[in-house]
Amino acid sequence: MTQPRPIVSLTTDFGRRDGYVGTMEGVILGICPTTAISHLSHQIPPQNIGAGAFVLYQSFEYFPPHAVHCVVVDPGVGSARRAVAVKTARGTFVGPDNGVLGLALSAAPPLAAVELTNPRYRLPHPGATFHGRDIFAPAAAHLAAGVPLTELGPPAENLVQLDVLRPPAPGWCRVIHVDHFGNVVLSLTQADVPEPASLALRIGETRIRSLRRTFADVSEGELLAYVGSTRSHIEIAMRKGNAAQSLDVQPGDLVQVEV
Amino acid sequence: MTQPRPIVSLTTDFGRRDGYVGTMEGVILGICPTTAISHLSHQIPPQNIGAGAFVLYQSFEYFPPHAVHCVVVDPGVGSARRAVAVKTARGTFVGPDNGVLGLALSAAPPLAAVELTNPRYRLPHPGATFHGRDIFAPAAAHLAAGVPLTELGPPAENLVQLDVLRPPAPGWCRVIHVDHFGNVVLSLTQADVPEPASLALRIGETRIRSLRRTFADVSEGELLAYVGSTRSHIEIAMRKGNAAQSLDVQPGDLVQVEV
Amino acid sequence: MTQPRPIVSLTTDFGRRDGYVGTMEGVILGICPTTAISHLSHQIPPQNIGAGAFVLYQSFEYFPPHAVHCVVVDPGVGSARRAVAVKTARGTFVGPDNGVLGLALSAAPPLAAVELTNPRYRLPHPGATFHGRDIFAPAAAHLAAGVPLTELGPPAENLVQLDVLRPPAPGWCRVIHVDHFGNVVLSLTQADVPEPASLALRIGETRIRSLRRTFADVSEGELLAYVGSTRSHIEIAMRKGNAAQSLDVQPGDLVQVEV
Repeated sequence: MTQPRPIVSLTTDFGRRDGYVGTMEGVILGICPTTAISHLSHQIPPQNIGAGAFVLYQSFEYFPPHAVHCVVVDPGVGSARRAVAVKTARGTFVGPDNGVLGLALSAAPPLAAVELTNPRYRLPHPGATFHGRDIFAPAAAHLAAGVPLTELGPPAENLVQLDVLRPPAPGWCRVIHVDHFGNVVLSLTQADVPEPASLALRIGETRIRSLRRTFADVSEGELLAYVGSTRSHIEIAMRKGNAAQSLDVQPGDLVQVEV
Repeated sequence: MTQPRPIVSLTTDFGRRDGYVGTMEGVILGICPTTAISHLSHQIPPQNIGAGAFVLYQSFEYFPPHAVHCVVVDPGVGSARRAVAVKTARGTFVGPDNGVLGLALSAAPPLAAVELTNPRYRLPHPGATFHGRDIFAPAAAHLAAGVPLTELGPPAENLVQLDVLRPPAPGWCRVIHVDHFGNVVLSLTQADVPEPASLALRIGETRIRSLRRTFADVSEGELLAYVGSTRSHIEIAMRKGNAAQSLDVQPGDLVQVEV
Repeated sequence: MTQPRPIVSLTTDFGRRDGYVGTMEGVILGICPTTAISHLSHQIPPQNIGAGAFVLYQSFEYFPPHAVHCVVVDPGVGSARRAVAVKTARGTFVGPDNGVLGLALSAAPPLAAVELTNPRYRLPHPGATFHGRDIFAPAAAHLAAGVPLTELGPPAENLVQLDVLRPPAPGWCRVIHVDHFGNVVLSLTQADVPEPASLALRIGETRIRSLRRTFADVSEGELLAYVGSTRSHIEIAMRKGNAAQSLDVQPGDLVQVEV
């Protein structure tokens, strides 16, 4: 039996102006030359753990389960926060233990988790400011190459969780993401809406009624709610427009729900 | 005889802030793990079919002819517009049938085209809003892996065309693209200019005379016309400057031509 | 003995809006299909040789030494400037001879250099405006595939150098880069600071004292100097803030140093 081709996905807040992401690619290709490296996003707003967590959550299950997903949004680099790797049935995750893996782990429960302390699987002399290069990329590459998780360090327990999916109060939900098109992703999911026709969402003065199937079901410039492409979350969009700008909302904002 | 390494290029208006492009990579690597995935652009302005068509047109012939080019600029997603795959002697194209493949097909005539309706080559339960993930990426990956075009669905006829290359009126041409450097690509080509020295272009009050060989043929800050790098189209640039900003032009604008 | 997988890294000022980078990928995959293509940055400010040189300098040594690094920041394209390839013990570099390889070559001295004149390793009929596609990408791909450097053209001597690392005057250093996070990289390195505790940097009215280990050593909103992630250069950052904006500095600015 042949091994599947190793896959590592990268998600960071590094942007693409500097050589930081390329440096991580160099480290990975040096350790595991056959790796297919995939880039989820490097435009996570600097140090925004929730946004990094969301991008991983919306993407990882479309990769084969042997893929390793490395996420580096790490405001606490150099502090006592742990560096971890977590194995699940749907993929292996590598990153700082600050919640950035939290949404993915709510969808794919941990089977095992370790703290990345074994110096054999880090670059020599890791610095205090670029663990993406010195600790996370090497760990991801070694895992992709088939090194067993338990080799990388001792078990890690009580991983930091993220709580953005839970309703903030009865009758309310939360904006969890605004995408490139201005579509507004809510914590509300299809399962929370037993009667699509009777749904109503209220944001400020605006009321959006009924759950539609797709953009073409409304006129240009009109707002609609529909089951989006991310795990059956309800989204608000404007046909041929930008809903987030029109509604002036951002992640974290609250939305009133009638079902 | 060994198969060449499968290649899929991706062009979308998805941006790189979300996980949408990465999700497509995951789907492709799951179906055809050895694929080399190449990114032409994901910064097509949202829903701008002409800009997506141009990027494909300027790039595809530099790939080996077995490459599959997947373009998703799809304002009609979820409506009745068809999803198609088109085989040519210079590459295979996958995308919505809305004209986004039109410029490439004007340079590489279709040998065969099908509508992507066979559920076996889609993700199970495709949604109504993200056909890049559910329909186009799987089709591209299966084609790259060697599935015959005719397996993917019934023949598709009368593909939607794009008409931006034809002169809008005698003595006029059109701006078909403005690039990252502010260089202005015209629908006019080298073949339309029998006498390079006698060419004159008029944009508003500005007159640009003669066809130059390269930027170094004029002074810094000066405008020039030259045969650009895209298929012998004439371009207007400013040496060490931004011609499009200086001239205040954008795609679709008309330019007067004396040859 | 098997060959290692070929690697080509790309650094340009082309942006990602057009198909220019994808076109270079198509050329490379056509010549050397197994290549792993890595992107250091395509957001080098247009024609900014110093910024391109820095990104290469900060990244290349994290790649295996058989990697080929192709850098195209080329304001003199079409003029008499030479196109070169340079072999070092730590990687092979391909680009215009305008200084853009200069910082990398100060860290990895040239073993051999050639001018890229052999038509066999260019695209047929190279144009005057897109040498990235017509000359540099083919050269990088052929070198990655194992073609000996000396095949590509005659020896090139007296390569153009970059001088930004040398102190501009005693007691001063220079800002050589501002990164995505607003961190300010100085020409000063750890080796220039024998007594970390007694370092002081002065920028305008602001004085920053002592060399810290990491961000967590100061309060949020406070400026700090520390040994950054790039080759032991000293950087200035603001914890959970943007130092370059706060200090209003850019590459080339001078900083006063007390050690």
